[in-house]
Amino acid sequence: IAQNDAALVLANLEDLYPADITTVLYELNAQQSKYVLDLLEPEVGSEILSSLDAEIRNNFLKNFTSEEIARYVNLMESDDAVDVLNEQKVQVREEVISLLDNEEKAADIIDLLHYEEDSAGGLMAKELIKVNINWRVGQCIDEIRRQAETVEQVYGVYVVDDKDKLLGRLGLKTLILASDHTPIDQLFDPDVIRIESYKKDTDVVEIMQKYNLDSIPVVDAQNKLLGRITIDDVLDVIQEQAETTRQLMTGITENIEEDDSILRLSRARLPWLLIAMIGGLMGARLIKVFEAEISLIPAMAMFTPLITATGGNVGIQSSSLIIQTLAHNSLIQDNFSRRLLKVLLVALINACVISGLVLSFNVILEEDLRLAVVVSVALFSVVVLSSIMGTVTPMLLDKMGINPAVAAGPFITTANDLLGLAVYFLVAHLLLLDFFQK
Amino acid sequence: IAQNDAALVLANLEDLYPADITTVLYELNAQQSKYVLDLLEPEVGSEILSSLDAEIRNNFLKNFTSEEIARYVNLMESDDAVDVLNEQKVQVREEVISLLDNEEKAADIIDLLHYEEDSAGGLMAKELIKVNINWRVGQCIDEIRRQAETVEQVYGVYVVDDKDKLLGRLGLKTLILASDHTPIDQLFDPDVIRIESYKKDTDVVEIMQKYNLDSIPVVDAQNKLLGRITIDDVLDVIQEQAETTRQLMTGITENIEEDDSILRLSRARLPWLLIAMIGGLMGARLIKVFEAEISLIPAMAMFTPLITATGGNVGIQSSSLIIQTLAHNSLIQDNFSRRLLKVLLVALINACVISGLVLSFNVILEEDLRLAVVVSVALFSVVVLSSIMGTVTPMLLDKMGINPAVAAGPFITTANDLLGLAVYFLVAHLLLLDFFQK
Repeated sequence: IAQNDAALVLANLEDLYPADITTVLYELNAQQSKYVLDLLEPEVGSEILSSLDAEIRNNFLKNFTSEEIARYVNLMESDDAVDVLNEQKVQVREEVISLLDNEEKAADIIDLLHYEEDSAGGLMAKELIKVNINWRVGQCIDEIRRQAETVEQVYGVYVVDDKDKLLGRLGLKTLILASDHTPIDQLFDPDVIRIESYKKDTDVVEIMQKYNLDSIPVVDAQNKLLGRITIDDVLDVIQEQAETTRQLMTGITENIEEDDSILRLSRARLPWLLIAMIGGLMGARLIKVFEAEISLIPAMAMFTPLITATGGNVGIQSSSLIIQTLAHNSLIQDNFSRRLLKVLLVALINACVISGLVLSFNVILEEDLRLAVVVSVALFSVVVLSSIMGTVTPMLLDKMGINPAVAAGPFITTANDLLGLAVYFLVAHLLLLDFFQK
Repeated sequence: IAQNDAALVLANLEDLYPADITTVLYELNAQQSKYVLDLLEPEVGSEILSSLDAEIRNNFLKNFTSEEIARYVNLMESDDAVDVLNEQKVQVREEVISLLDNEEKAADIIDLLHYEEDSAGGLMAKELIKVNINWRVGQCIDEIRRQAETVEQVYGVYVVDDKDKLLGRLGLKTLILASDHTPIDQLFDPDVIRIESYKKDTDVVEIMQKYNLDSIPVVDAQNKLLGRITIDDVLDVIQEQAETTRQLMTGITENIEEDDSILRLSRARLPWLLIAMIGGLMGARLIKVFEAEISLIPAMAMFTPLITATGGNVGIQSSSLIIQTLAHNSLIQDNFSRRLLKVLLVALINACVISGLVLSFNVILEEDLRLAVVVSVALFSVVVLSSIMGTVTPMLLDKMGINPAVAAGPFITTANDLLGLAVYFLVAHLLLLDFFQK
């Protein structure tokens, strides 16, 4: 489509929302995207750039000169501008900043670049509407009018004193319903929840969710109003969190995306694979210890995959469940023994079903009866033990201040493999001795 | 603390936000919580009840009479009220509705109960501010004043015609800046994104995220305005989604919480365990086919856990990564073969490292050299094959319209166990034949 017919492209895109144009751009390559973007209004272009995924945007901006980037950054909200600049090389970043014609924005951006990306300061935007406690409603509305251009989404107005200290908040609803002459200090709500700029982004998420906020003011240690964080920024953090947990649970150590380099992808995946490898080698040693049992019933080897797989699966299920509970209400000092009893009961039910079924199968398939009994007894023990381990390990890690999700993936699986093997051969050892004594 | 000293309890709780009182209640049992709640203002109480987790709330409301529940439901927003009522038995639900003194709210609730819980209709609240296209700003502000009590959070005003058809939206900012006499039809934005009530809740999430909306109007098939969904409702859906994906990936079939009954917990976990069991039994059969190779080198059995565990881990890592990519941009028809090539390269690097390390270990530990070679060749093949399978399976499922997350957990592990065993013994079969021919 983008074969240089500018008029046609424009006609097609004109009626679309920026977000829809973004979807179209995802299907084009970097050159084609630049061509389309150059045709659009700079306002639309900057909105599209803000909404692109970091990797795609980065790839894309490589074809832009610093002047071109500056033109778009000029029109972005300060938090989006900082996100874009943070992805650029230092040189490009400095160049772009020096090229911004909006001096206030340039100062805001330089200020915001100082905060850690994963702190409240790193999430906040400088654009907000603040009014002095001594003003009246009329002045307040004038201020909103003055700022209407820069502040895209107004959720409320922050009330400050002469020293810019945050005193409270004034909802738009209240403002609409008040008369122009009412003094602000009779209307505003002093009970506003705020967050310090150095707090972690996950704290921001927690607070905004807990108190159901659509925006939150950010202050410094002296309660001076610095910026505000809106709910859409928090949505991104929530999704990143979910992804990190999922990656931890599946044995990926760094936060990676499929577009990352091959070396980086390999490096992120190797650590757990190596741990699992060591586990596997230890398993091999373990089996060697029980060579006598295997030579007695060679068919024993047949069932090791069944035993280890079952242990692994039960362990992951258990840890996944307890991690979910820990994430929800980490504060509750719930009855530890009652919880363990419940886990145990669930495990017993599942253990009975599985070992019963396997026993029947083995009898039907006319396997060695001794072996059938050994396998089922081992399975039963493995299900129960893995449930307990899968539940207790994350709880212990959580107590130690380690993210329990690391325990849900390869760690639990590897440990349960070893546990399963040990139980299997121990059961075999004990039962077979017994059989032979008869 | 709650030992009947009402005044003391009240004094302690008075200054807290409802969300903080909720945290306190989580630490008390149902009776104590009821005691505290009875002391508080009904407005605060209803807010607390709305914010409780479904299971805890349910447990808690068992101690309440229908009259008491009705008193709180009366003060809730319609969507929260419906959530609470949906958790009650039909009889309690009907009783509570008949006891509501606010008839409009009762009608709204009955209406909302008709929608599926996971549809846009099930998420929406009836409370919204709508104005007629023929009004002026002044009338609009009067309407906001009239509704100010019922509508807690005002993001904007919806503009409708005489037949209640949605025509557009008017932001509060615009409203504040306009004079009282301006007609609405000169101010409003006709370009408002809406959603039909029958759409899935996941569609709501997608649209609100894509267009960065803080609220979205819900319409019926004739574009009649039915209600609105706010961003905080969507946050809940997002978190539920993340949890469901995580549960699917760890082999839990129903959406369960740790507080559910023992039977329900067992039932949710059994299906995948059974599938894994069948996989394990098939593995046993498979090994039996290669009994000749095992009797030739009995030590072969030692390394089956290493092979199956590595295959399982690599498979889960690969599927986790591709599922993440699919979730982000499900629309992109990215270059399939280029992606596969990359997966292959990453797999080759990891395969070299792991099989090389295992070979060195086995040489150092003076294992049978034939066995050491077989194990490393098999490991290499397993890593590569599992990577491909872990990547392709979710992509295929996604194409078929099945949630690819189901493939990430026990399914991939089980399949890879079998694949790993087959590869291991096949390699052994081929290489050992070769060795013996020399």
